[in-house]
Amino acid sequence: MPDLIIVTGELGETERDRARQAVGSHEVLFVPDLADVSAELGRAAVIVGPVGPDQLRAACSLRWVHSWIAGPNSQLSEEMRASDVILTSSAGNGGVPLAEHAMMMMLMLDRDAPRWLRAQEERRWDRHVHGELLGQTVGIIGLGNAGADLARKAKAFGMRTLAVRRRAEVQDPDVDQVFTPGNLHAMLRQSDFVVVTAPLTPQTRGMFGPDEFAAMPDHSFFVCISRGGIADDTALLNALRTGSIAGAGIDAHGVEPLPEESEFWDMPHVILTPHNGATTPGTRRRGVDIMLENLRRYRDGEPLLNVVDKAHGY
Amino acid sequence: MPDLIIVTGELGETERDRARQAVGSHEVLFVPDLADVSAELGRAAVIVGPVGPDQLRAACSLRWVHSWIAGPNSQLSEEMRASDVILTSSAGNGGVPLAEHAMMMMLMLDRDAPRWLRAQEERRWDRHVHGELLGQTVGIIGLGNAGADLARKAKAFGMRTLAVRRRAEVQDPDVDQVFTPGNLHAMLRQSDFVVVTAPLTPQTRGMFGPDEFAAMPDHSFFVCISRGGIADDTALLNALRTGSIAGAGIDAHGVEPLPEESEFWDMPHVILTPHNGATTPGTRRRGVDIMLENLRRYRDGEPLLNVVDKAHGY
Repeated sequence: MPDLIIVTGELGETERDRARQAVGSHEVLFVPDLADVSAELGRAAVIVGPVGPDQLRAACSLRWVHSWIAGPNSQLSEEMRASDVILTSSAGNGGVPLAEHAMMMMLMLDRDAPRWLRAQEERRWDRHVHGELLGQTVGIIGLGNAGADLARKAKAFGMRTLAVRRRAEVQDPDVDQVFTPGNLHAMLRQSDFVVVTAPLTPQTRGMFGPDEFAAMPDHSFFVCISRGGIADDTALLNALRTGSIAGAGIDAHGVEPLPEESEFWDMPHVILTPHNGATTPGTRRRGVDIMLENLRRYRDGEPLLNVVDKAHGY
Repeated sequence: MPDLIIVTGELGETERDRARQAVGSHEVLFVPDLADVSAELGRAAVIVGPVGPDQLRAACSLRWVHSWIAGPNSQLSEEMRASDVILTSSAGNGGVPLAEHAMMMMLMLDRDAPRWLRAQEERRWDRHVHGELLGQTVGIIGLGNAGADLARKAKAFGMRTLAVRRRAEVQDPDVDQVFTPGNLHAMLRQSDFVVVTAPLTPQTRGMFGPDEFAAMPDHSFFVCISRGGIADDTALLNALRTGSIAGAGIDAHGVEPLPEESEFWDMPHVILTPHNGATTPGTRRRGVDIMLENLRRYRDGEPLLNVVDKAHGY
């Protein structure tokens, strides 16, 4: 008896063909949005895409949800946590472009690149002394795909690399020292740049408050490329306003889209991008590849990739 | 009989002490500018700093000039070329920050970072699909300190690295393929980014004209971090205007400071910086270290670092 697999999202014809091949004799249904096939929910064994709490309740035969997104926090509703449904993520689709984005932000902050762009607009030749990443220290929060790739890149820039991870016993060849979350402040005090690459989980939510920004040197920069909410926005704004840190590069925001009235927009030495660091054709391609590989594994009864640990939230 | 060594530039007291130690029993004179000690020129054996053609003629006992600058083109007057005076450069002082600058420009061009900064100024949440360096190809012109370090960084970004160098037989572990200057076009055709890191010499002057920009793919970006004049500005402007290349990042310009009326200032997808890529305290520190090491070598009769090959111009 074939299972019903519902794949949401905008897939091209070649991608649909590859998905049909991956599922074998199972039935596959392609829909832009899950709301378009409410009547079929009850017999779906697998859903690829976001599944809301009501849809989860209606999908009484559901065994597995695969998310198009790398960070699964938006899929971890109370209902999902309580259910036996397996949740897998697209972790790994955007790690490299996010690390690229972090490197770009670190370079732009260290060199005050916005100053050059303003001068260019006014046709002004305006030279200034700036820093170089060589010899500086980056403290990385989380060593998943983005964090580990960032460490590799930072090493090629001659930086000292520190990291905080939950499982501090797991070493990384590109990280000079790994700290436990309990030793976060010891790492922050040594960091010229702090880059948040961690998922949003109950443990990381609000991880950066007044004490953490106070622990950072006043010449240091805060960069966030993974999820808003890990930093407390009020504390971050206050640290920027009082000069207890030197600036920030923020791609992932506490509220998205960032409201027009937000104080972040015109804060000096702050570079904002609209949760856009990994929005590349490569991220989409890798996401499709991960999804297809997981469909094939499902068909062949092999262990799925990127199974989310619901208790830890990633 | 001690030699007279004139050191120009703004040196601090500690640096002067280190220089006095380096020269041993030789006499050392510190002056902001060589013009301040015209009367002493005739008995100077060594000058650290820029020496003009007239000063070179007046310095009839001169044996060695050490330049504070990495690229010696401004010191290679006809008089210097014709003389027996040894010329050494500060090559290596700014290679790493220049490579950082090139990486920043590549990332900013690939991601259209100026678009984000404009949106930020207008408090607009404006997302767009952009590229990632992973998997793209960079063609590097010249494999000196900056070029070799750029190749190392590009490799950490998962890029394919090509390079053109005069001595194509010298391999580099971070360069996938080295081309001779005669095969420049074959490299350009494969390059998503072309980065000029070469010195300005009779061979490189005007190296990029209409044919070279035509050989580059129309989605490609041109970046120059070493010297203006290697690209013909008219040809570059024309390539940008007609879309035969996608954009440019220019730190080293044909005319400096770039005149207010230059068409480069408001060309779309062009990022301009005011010959400012290596203006870091680290560059100054390394330049002083190179100078002091060369003074010590002079004192001890050892071979000097960074002796310029006057025929090849670097």
